[in-house]
Amino acid sequence: MADGSDFGSVDLVGIGPGGSQHLTFAAADALRHADVVIGYHTYLSQIRARLRGKRVLPRDIGLEMERAAEAVQLACSGHCVALVSGGDAGIYGMAAPLFQTLEARGWLPGQPPRVRVIPGVSAAQAAAALLGAPLMHDFATISLSDLLTPWEIIVQRIEAAARADFVLALYNPASSRRVTRLDHAFGVIRRFRTAETPVAFVRDAGRSGETVGIASLGTARGRQADMHTVVIVGSSQTRRLGAAALLLTPRGYTSPAEPSG
Amino acid sequence: MADGSDFGSVDLVGIGPGGSQHLTFAAADALRHADVVIGYHTYLSQIRARLRGKRVLPRDIGLEMERAAEAVQLACSGHCVALVSGGDAGIYGMAAPLFQTLEARGWLPGQPPRVRVIPGVSAAQAAAALLGAPLMHDFATISLSDLLTPWEIIVQRIEAAARADFVLALYNPASSRRVTRLDHAFGVIRRFRTAETPVAFVRDAGRSGETVGIASLGTARGRQADMHTVVIVGSSQTRRLGAAALLLTPRGYTSPAEPSG
Repeated sequence: MADGSDFGSVDLVGIGPGGSQHLTFAAADALRHADVVIGYHTYLSQIRARLRGKRVLPRDIGLEMERAAEAVQLACSGHCVALVSGGDAGIYGMAAPLFQTLEARGWLPGQPPRVRVIPGVSAAQAAAALLGAPLMHDFATISLSDLLTPWEIIVQRIEAAARADFVLALYNPASSRRVTRLDHAFGVIRRFRTAETPVAFVRDAGRSGETVGIASLGTARGRQADMHTVVIVGSSQTRRLGAAALLLTPRGYTSPAEPSG
Repeated sequence: MADGSDFGSVDLVGIGPGGSQHLTFAAADALRHADVVIGYHTYLSQIRARLRGKRVLPRDIGLEMERAAEAVQLACSGHCVALVSGGDAGIYGMAAPLFQTLEARGWLPGQPPRVRVIPGVSAAQAAAALLGAPLMHDFATISLSDLLTPWEIIVQRIEAAARADFVLALYNPASSRRVTRLDHAFGVIRRFRTAETPVAFVRDAGRSGETVGIASLGTARGRQADMHTVVIVGSSQTRRLGAAALLLTPRGYTSPAEPSG
């Protein structure tokens, strides 16, 4: 193992929100270069056309640590592995499982296997693009999943972000286990924002069948989201364009007509 | 103007961090489709090979409102315009100037010109990919530019994000006008995080000549950043892999060995 000659590589590939048009050229190159591709089966089906002739290892949802370990193991036996992550691998994706696995093996950069992270368009960015300009000032990205994080910490973050007037992008707003989380989150945010604050529910952003729903904070309900939805809550400055499904957060707190310098 | 037959379109194209490999296929398609391309000249030079045969309108930095107005005007006279933004157009990019311009004209979706936003890889994502897995839990994105936002609001956000244990991604950490801003920000964050908290300075992330510097919060200094730098400050959970320029924020607050379910 000293010279690494038997080692391959792991490219951690963020494929974007699902629609093939949002893939980057770097992600496509990494997939082309790989001889083994491993990932959650839904993501692999989204890039099926790029996987012909490769060894493809579709895996079930969850078990991310096991998937990362499998990718590293394959790289250590000489394969060029593409470990596929949805959206951006570094945002609630496979980056932490991969580096936790490498850390546990005592791996350091420069040692085999070679590891690269290929960034991609995140679900929140795909949602924002459909909405116009909702994230156009400081924003906070929060997952409502309490599988690995105590709910109390999540609530503290929602409260801090709401109090400091961040736009909020909420991931994992609902699941069969967590039917009241989003209503709880809206309740916290209502203490700091007006009832008119725009709230967007974007489902399957950047994929076929994408849908956008707009509500106000006063009327938004948790049941409007499911596990495929990203929820964006505007800041005090965010406004809706007419009755359209477009949200605009201006770049700052001064007059929109003022030059930016 | 009723039927829109004389109208063209505006595609707002986020070209990613600069290196052509981080462009998405959708962004490349939009550039191919355009007959006029307008944007900050540095961004246009990064995609020069894709602009042959087109009318190219390179513009100076700043004056984003004017650039957006020019793009809309060209679309209203029948052109297919690509308005180019660095990184993701919706994150400190041209999305707000464009939609503020459209709003001021009374434009609504469905009316001409046709407007689309093409998301791209942001500077923070490109920086995170170089660092491994720093953004792998909830994070807050904050611009230290006080051109359009009062410094007091920026400080409140830094404090809120630090207190609630977000990873922080700091944009516009320095300029010739703002030499002490980042030191001020570090001072605020030190009240909530230990001196050992990892801090990354990533310059020109995702472009040729990219560099990564790692410090700890106790020793980090504002002069380590310039206007081409994104600064990432870890949460209480973020750790450095050995002495390497890699940061790992685990996915949650439970044991790394625990299955994710």
